Parts: sequence; structure tokens; C-alpha cells
Amino acid sequence: MKMRNLVGERFKERPSDCVVDSHALMVRGGYIKQVANGIFSLYTPGKRVTAKIEKIIREEMERVDSQEVLFPVVLPGALWMESGRYESVDNTLARFNDRNGTPMVLGMTHEEASVQLVRDWASSYQKYPFSIFQIQTKFRDEARPRAGLIRVREFTMKDAYSFHTSQEDLEAYYDRMYRAYERVYARAGVPEVVAVKADSGMMGGSVSHEYMLLTDIGEDSIVICPECGYRANMEAADCKVKKAEFEDGPLTKVSTPGIKTIDELCAFLKIDPKQTAKAVVYQRNEDDKVIVIMIRGDLELNETKLRNYLGYAVHPANLDESSPVVAGFIGPVGLSKDVVLVVDKSLEGEAGLVTGANEENYHYTGFNVARDLPNAEFVDVAKAAEGGICPVCGKHSLTIRRGIEVGNIFQLGTKYTKSMNMTYTDANGEAQFPIMGCYGIGVGRLAASVCEVRRDQYGPIWPITIAPWEVQLCCLRVDDPEVHGLADKLYNDMQDEGIEVMYDDRDIRPGAMFSDADLLGCPVRVVVSPKNLKDNLVEISTRDKSVQLKVQKEDTLDTVKKIIADLKKAIADNVPEAK
Amino acid sequence: MKMRNLVGERFKERPSDCVVDSHALMVRGGYIKQVANGIFSLYTPGKRVTAKIEKIIREEMERVDSQEVLFPVVLPGALWMESGRYESVDNTLARFNDRNGTPMVLGMTHEEASVQLVRDWASSYQKYPFSIFQIQTKFRDEARPRAGLIRVREFTMKDAYSFHTSQEDLEAYYDRMYRAYERVYARAGVPEVVAVKADSGMMGGSVSHEYMLLTDIGEDSIVICPECGYRANMEAADCKVKKAEFEDGPLTKVSTPGIKTIDELCAFLKIDPKQTAKAVVYQRNEDDKVIVIMIRGDLELNETKLRNYLGYAVHPANLDESSPVVAGFIGPVGLSKDVVLVVDKSLEGEAGLVTGANEENYHYTGFNVARDLPNAEFVDVAKAAEGGICPVCGKHSLTIRRGIEVGNIFQLGTKYTKSMNMTYTDANGEAQFPIMGCYGIGVGRLAASVCEVRRDQYGPIWPITIAPWEVQLCCLRVDDPEVHGLADKLYNDMQDEGIEVMYDDRDIRPGAMFSDADLLGCPVRVVVSPKNLKDNLVEISTRDKSVQLKVQKEDTLDTVKKIIADLKKAIADNVPEAK
Repeated sequence: MKMRNLVGERFKERPSDCVVDSHALMVRGGYIKQVANGIFSLYTPGKRVTAKIEKIIREEMERVDSQEVLFPVVLPGALWMESGRYESVDNTLARFNDRNGTPMVLGMTHEEASVQLVRDWASSYQKYPFSIFQIQTKFRDEARPRAGLIRVREFTMKDAYSFHTSQEDLEAYYDRMYRAYERVYARAGVPEVVAVKADSGMMGGSVSHEYMLLTDIGEDSIVICPECGYRANMEAADCKVKKAEFEDGPLTKVSTPGIKTIDELCAFLKIDPKQTAKAVVYQRNEDDKVIVIMIRGDLELNETKLRNYLGYAVHPANLDESSPVVAGFIGPVGLSKDVVLVVDKSLEGEAGLVTGANEENYHYTGFNVARDLPNAEFVDVAKAAEGGICPVCGKHSLTIRRGIEVGNIFQLGTKYTKSMNMTYTDANGEAQFPIMGCYGIGVGRLAASVCEVRRDQYGPIWPITIAPWEVQLCCLRVDDPEVHGLADKLYNDMQDEGIEVMYDDRDIRPGAMFSDADLLGCPVRVVVSPKNLKDNLVEISTRDKSVQLKVQKEDTLDTVKKIIADLKKAIADNVPEAK
Repeated sequence: MKMRNLVGERFKERPSDCVVDSHALMVRGGYIKQVANGIFSLYTPGKRVTAKIEKIIREEMERVDSQEVLFPVVLPGALWMESGRYESVDNTLARFNDRNGTPMVLGMTHEEASVQLVRDWASSYQKYPFSIFQIQTKFRDEARPRAGLIRVREFTMKDAYSFHTSQEDLEAYYDRMYRAYERVYARAGVPEVVAVKADSGMMGGSVSHEYMLLTDIGEDSIVICPECGYRANMEAADCKVKKAEFEDGPLTKVSTPGIKTIDELCAFLKIDPKQTAKAVVYQRNEDDKVIVIMIRGDLELNETKLRNYLGYAVHPANLDESSPVVAGFIGPVGLSKDVVLVVDKSLEGEAGLVTGANEENYHYTGFNVARDLPNAEFVDVAKAAEGGICPVCGKHSLTIRRGIEVGNIFQLGTKYTKSMNMTYTDANGEAQFPIMGCYGIGVGRLAASVCEVRRDQYGPIWPITIAPWEVQLCCLRVDDPEVHGLADKLYNDMQDEGIEVMYDDRDIRPGAMFSDADLLGCPVRVVVSPKNLKDNLVEISTRDKSVQLKVQKEDTLDTVKKIIADLKKAIADNVPEAK
């Protein structure tokens, strides 16, 4: 198609509301337009990039024998009541009543719909295993949309659901899907995406992985051990600490007037934060019951792990005078019975610690956890830290990186089949609940993430597999009949060869033409100019500057085809074998 | 793929809630599953049929230079307030508040979103004309969903929007789009779809056409003149009647005790209904103001034309004692000034009529419209009738048929650009409002409509261009190694040739296998059976029974390819040239 006809504007100024570079480039390049907070329309270049990603995903899903279906966007609330999520999910789930007053929701994920679709049919073990997927619009009423398509309220998602009669069978399929995801990212030109151990959150289930594209603008913190390859989302990363081994002694109440923070305490007593047992205080959402978490003073609480352990919703405490704790001086010894006490694993076996005495202006020294808190249950609720000990190989090597989650896979177990009463008859005639897996990829987020890691200051550098067009053809002097004639001919020849080409024959300055080309980010650029044509030459380059050639005009088409093939091969070479 | 793996059930019993045959077949064939009233999930066969229709539509839209974009499903209410439709559309428009209390709507059509996308960019006449389209989920909270995918609340729709600087330019593009639609239906295997003049309804604008697939289960009545080709939706059809020419006479009040209906009146006075001027009574929704429509006694009121004439919403009257009319005896002479009087064109120039005297138990005879109602404005608000006069050629030839609307195209004018203040600068530097067209096709409805008109009692007979698979391969005796071996080989060979094949090698009775094949409706069937294989033969037939062959097993692949090519050619032969 021709640039002169392309709907949407390309411009130079960075929009003031764009914090993230890829967001600014996708607005400036005419890929997306905001309609409401976190809600976007896609112009044709954006639509073409996402359509190509969808095609890659579709092919990889079919390769692992998943069958394409389509669920509704609008679902009856009754279906979500069956699973219990109508009540349990917060207002991220958009709810409304239809014209008859029936509660409806906008699908933010489709476990319930997938069970509804197959539960009548899959009544015998002989139908298993099977897998279904859809590519469809989802709506999640996120509190804080950000960064263009990276965190939005409405988005296109591929979501797949598999059903199994044994955990082993689920795991075998999960492995295939794990690999299918690696193939999707590699084919989309970002083979560096890594799978990390994840928290299962509102989905339920036990084992889950997130696929992370590591970049500083990512919202997630990833814990990585370069020694053994351990990778986990901070939310799910185990925390392992070396025992501190301070000198044991008697529990002694000491005066610490006005000393309320760990920093003040350490300065006052001239000790290391590791020698303190600090209290972090939360409250149960339901009834504001106080929860005190005791944790080694140098560590931080991992809220996700706390929630998972408690099994109910909590928030950081708002203490007042009626609270059953003495703020600033809270400790495990002599703590009110009206609070829930959680003791982090980091305190297990420690002695000689300083901790609050539950009395205004007093702390204890010589706190021996085993002696002074004999019935404590130790729970891992601490955040892993940079330079910390890897929970797998035990080396002091953890690094923390930022990443964008570009996909996730879950072993759901029977959470949905049980709650929605989906059963099958096994070989012995017994009723059983199928075991499920679910697998998601946000299409627009992946497009934006690729843009974030494949760009320069002038625009995206799209991998050829997902670029809006393969070739950008620039006719530098439309008023020169020879130049225009050759450019027209190349346009037609390339189209005849099935090459996707964006042809710019507008009567504008070369600088403006190249700026627009940079913003469209097509991997191959062909420039026909009077200067080169005088020597019978045409200029061919790649968007990433790795190729910059002048070729005889007769060789243009063959050279373009060769470069396209090379670019495709370079991507294909990084795609792992399917399982 | 293999039948044994296909998710979803095929069964024999007609579901009790299916009134329409295609609905029953699509449920029985495992194409669709209801999730809520008017909301369906699609199984893989349904998804494949609709995906093929989408591909045809996409190609035809691109052929008329429309660019694919994507609008959101969830739109800010503010955008619909700009156009005024947030208020004017009834509760078919689903509205909800997001987590911040901001009013949102579910897109039921995207005129507003299309203007929002392009209004900043298209600020100069040089950008025009242009056209954009999307294929996306829509939600309309219909009061009466019916007939499976034919009338639903959630559906996938292709909607296109074009923008022009002159009415002539819009008309030229409208013509191209008109032809593109004909091509879509022909390519989908239903070249018999006809365009009819339509009412523009809530879209606004003047000229519009609906594409109708004529079938008895259709919801719309289509007025057709076989003489001159005039075709219009009943809602929009002009009504032309021959002057009745009764003998003139003086206006005379006659006693008609208890005679309230036209039937009773005609029997009592021994006259034809044509000789009466009957009153139909409506009320304005806003304030219940009474509207009396006088119309020739043999005709019926066309409510749509009445609404369009009045320009406000009305409903059939609920009269009581306080009403300013005398029910059963209403007439135009001496009618209360508190009512709105509308006089249908059918009464223009008539005389010698009987009509109500606005007095209990009395009618007038000798009503002369010109004499007794000197200032009447005559308006066409009557329904066209079977055998009526064609408003174009004037012959007595109108027939009424039922049809399903499978697409519509509108010349919108400046309704949206004006209300949403979208302007461009013309060649003289003046600000102008662009002129719009919009063009819709419901994908699922088209699939269901094709099923309705291409089926037998056993299942759909899909046109090859939209069939879920091209070939159904049946292995009749999976336990016979020779039969199974040949069927496996044919399966692989066909797939290698790029043929879409559904392979049934389940160990079930031939009858059950053929029933399932009938329900999937694949156009070509290949049957490998022990009986035929003894003679080295394979059976090949088409779903529509026009081909039934036995061929040497070695010739199977070539014969199948030939039949597929013939079926495709037969469809292509009916596709008109693009404009």
C-alpha cells in the first residue's frame, strides 16, 4: 500500500503523557490511539503487527493440538458465581446488569466459560486429554493502566485451557505448552524471553510460570541465579538466608526511649539490622484483625507470600490507640493474644536478637527464638534480595532484574472442575474431576514489549516476522519521471513476488520521508533517488543498519528477496524444536 | 484433524428450544453452545466457518481500499454523549460504570469510535477519501434473541466507515462497496442474496440498503416487484394505491350502534373496506399525546414510516375515558384539537367514504377528503401489500417475501461528523464537515443464514469456500488393517496436498459415522470400506449428492482434487467483477 493513503498521523514530538519509550513511539508512529484511560484503538500498522503475532500463536497452539474456539466477551454472572469468582474477584471484574436485570460480567479470563463449553461432552475418560484456545477481547478494569499497550484495561488475549485425567498427563502437556511459548517468542523475534516460577494469584493452582521479557521498564521484579539458572518472580521467589549466629544471652528488657524504627534501634544499640527481629503489621480486610509478622530486621516482607499463607485478603495496618499492639515496640514475647502472629523462616534458630518488648520505650535484647517462642511455626514470607542466597544451588548470587510479563502458564488442578461440578467417568466407572491447565498470552502487550526492546531513538526495529510490512520503498523525487518510474516498477514487482511493501511516493522532503519510515520500522528499506540512479544504483538497507548496500537497479528485487530470506532465517535459527 | 479428537458433541435429537432448523443443526452439529440468552460460544467447526467468512470479507474490504483497524469493545460513554446516542438509544445499548464511576458502553456499532480515530488526522481535504474497517465483537442487548446465531446479543461484525468530501464521492464509493458486498455473499456461496432499499433507523442518513437472504424464517418482510426489480424492506417500501373512485355525496351522520371495527362497519353498511377511512391511534412516548392516523380501510399502518415522519418515539395508544377521542368512532371531521392528525396518501382525492363521527355509535358517510379536510397534508405511512402497485413501474405486481438481513450499507451524511465536530479544510481554506458512509456484516448471522438455505434434514451442506473442512474421510472398519492403512495414507496424502480434511477413524457403526459427517457438512466425502476395497475401489461423493463415484483407489487423490476445484470454480463463476 501507499503511505499517502495510510490512515493515521506520524509525528516528531514526544507526547507528554508517554513515560515509556515504546509507548511514545507507538503513538508517534500511528500504531495506537487512546480512546479512554487504558483503552486504545489500533490503526492499520498496529493491527498488522498484532495480526501477525496472532497468526504465530495460532500456529503454535495448533501444533500442540489445541483447537480454536471462541468464548463470549459478555458472560452471565451466574457462571462466575459457580466458581466463586463473582464474589472473590475485586472490581477489576467489570459487572453490569442486562436489560432484564440479570448480572453479567466482562470476561477477564475464561476458565468458567471453558468448563461450561466442554463439561457435558467430556463425560468419559476416553475424551481426554484435550485442549482448546481462543483469541479474543478481554476487559480488566485495572486501577493503574500504564505504558500504552503494556498495561491496559481492554486487550486481545490468546487463552488456552487443557483438561486431563492425571497430574502426570497435565505435566506432560504443560511441558509441550512451555516449549510452544518459547517458540512463539522466538518466532516473534524475542528469543531472550525467559520463563520464571510464578505466583498463581487469583487463578488458583500450584505450579505456574510467567514468561518475562527483561527490561528496565518492566513492572515485575525477577529473581535470577546466574549460577544454576533459578528464575522466579519476586512474588513467588523463595527466600533463603544464612544463619546469623549472634551470641546467646538472657532475655533482657532495655530502655529505648523514643526509638521506634529499625534504623534508630541499630544506631542506638550499635548493632546490625540482622541482629533485630522486626515486626511488620497488617490487618485482615474482613474485620481489621491485626496480624504481626516477625522477620529478620534486614529483610522485607513479601506481601504475596503472606497472602497466600494466610488465605485471606490483608492490608498494611492503620494502627490507632485502640489497637492491641504498641506501635514501634512490637515483639513476639508478651504479644497480645488478640493478634495473629506470623514468624518468618529467617528467624528460625536465631538467638541474641533485639526485638520490641510490647511496652512503650522498651525493647528486649538476648531474644532466643527457640527458647522464647517455643511453639512458633516458621513460614517463608520474606522477599528475596539482590546478592541473596539462591534457594536452589545455595550460592550467594541472586540478582534482581525488571521484566514485562508477556505470557503465563498455570497448572490449575481441579479448582474449577470441582467448584463447577465437571466430572468424567474413569475406566473403573468412578466419577472424577478433570485436572486443568491454562495458558495466556496478551497479544498487544507482546507487540509493545517487542517494540520496547527492539528500537532506537527514531522508532521500532520490528523483527521481520511481525513487522507491519517487510519493505519500505522510498521514492525520493516523485517529480523525476525516471525515479518515479523505477520506484513504481519496483513496487509492482515486489507485490507480484508476494513481498509486503509500503510505498512512499509522497512529494515531501527526504528527511520527513525517512523519519516516517523509521517510525514504521519495516526491516528492509529501498531508496530510489536521482543521485544514485545516475549511477544506475538503488540503495538498500535494513532498519537495524546491519545491511547498507548500493546495488545495480536490476539487482534490486533479488537483493531484497535475499535479505528478507536472511532475516527470516536468523529468526528461525533461534526457534527451539517443538515438543 | 481427527474426529476422535474434535471437542464437542454431535447428536440426533432436535433440541426442544430450537424453532429454526439451522439453529437445531448448528447445536446438533457441535458448532455452537449457548452460554446465556443470545450469547454463544463457538466450537471449532463454528469457529472455522466464521474464520473463513471473515477472510473473504477482509479480502473484499481490502479490494475496495479499506484499511483494517481495531476499535475497542468498551467505549467511554462520553464519546456516545458527543453524538447524542448515549441518550437517544434505548437499553439495547449496554451501559455500566467503571471502577472510577465513569460511564462506559459496550460498542454496538462504531461510528463514534471511527470519528474519534481519524478526526485529528483527517484535517485537510487532501487526506480524503479514505475507508477503514474492523472485524470485532459487538454487544447489543436485544429484547428477543432468536434462532441461534441469527439474532443474538453478542456477535462478531465487520463494520467499515468511509469519509468523503462530496456526496458524489460518497456515492461512487458506496457503489464499489455495494458490489463488494455482492462479492462477499457470492464467495460465501449464497449469490442469491439481494440488496433492498432500507430504512436507516438509528444510524441516521438517507440512502441505505440491506442485503437479504430470502427464506421463510426471515424476520424481515421484503417487497419485491418481479416486473421492474424494485426491492425494498417493508419498513421502507413506498405504498402506492389506485384511486378507488366511489360516488360522491353529502357528509351524512348515520347511526352505527356498537359498530367499532372496520369489519363490523363493512358488514353493517355492506361496503368494501376500501370505502372506509379508518383511524389508527398512537401516543407519543414522551407525554402520551394522542396521534390519530387516518388511512384507507384496506391498508395497514407502517410504523417505521410513521416514526420517521414524526421524528419522535411513539407507541400504540392505550386509550381510556380521559382520552380526547371516542374509541371505535374516530374520524377526521370534528376531531379534537388536542390530537395530532396524520393523513395517509391513500386518502388523497377520495370521496364517498365512511369514517368515524367522533361520537359514540355514529359514523359519517359521504366523506369527501378534499372538501371535508381542506388543509390536509398527505403522508405515505401505509404498508405495501401483496399484489399492490409497484411504486416504480406502477404495475400491480408486488410480492412480499421473508428475508434475513445479512448486511447493510448506509449513506450517513454528516450526522456524526457534525455532532462530533469533525471538520477538514477544503481547497479554499474553508472548514467543512466530512460526509460518511458505513457498512456492516454480521459474521455469525451470515454463517447461520447460509446453513438455513444450504442444508437437508441431516445437516448443513456448506459451500466449499466456508466449509469447516473440505473433505470428510471415513474409515469404515478401523479394525481391518488394509482399510485403515489406506485411509491413513489418504489422510496424509491429502494433508500434504494442502487439502483440509477431517478424518474419522473411530470404531463406530457406519450409520453413526455418516450422521456425524452429515452434521459437519463437508462438501466432499471419501469413504474407505472393506466391501469396495475388495474391488480396489474407494467411494467419493459430494455432500449435496450431485457427485457419487467409485474410483480406483489410486485415483482417489486426483479425483478429490478435481471435485474440490470444480466446486470452487462453480462458486467463483457466480462472483461479479469488482468495481
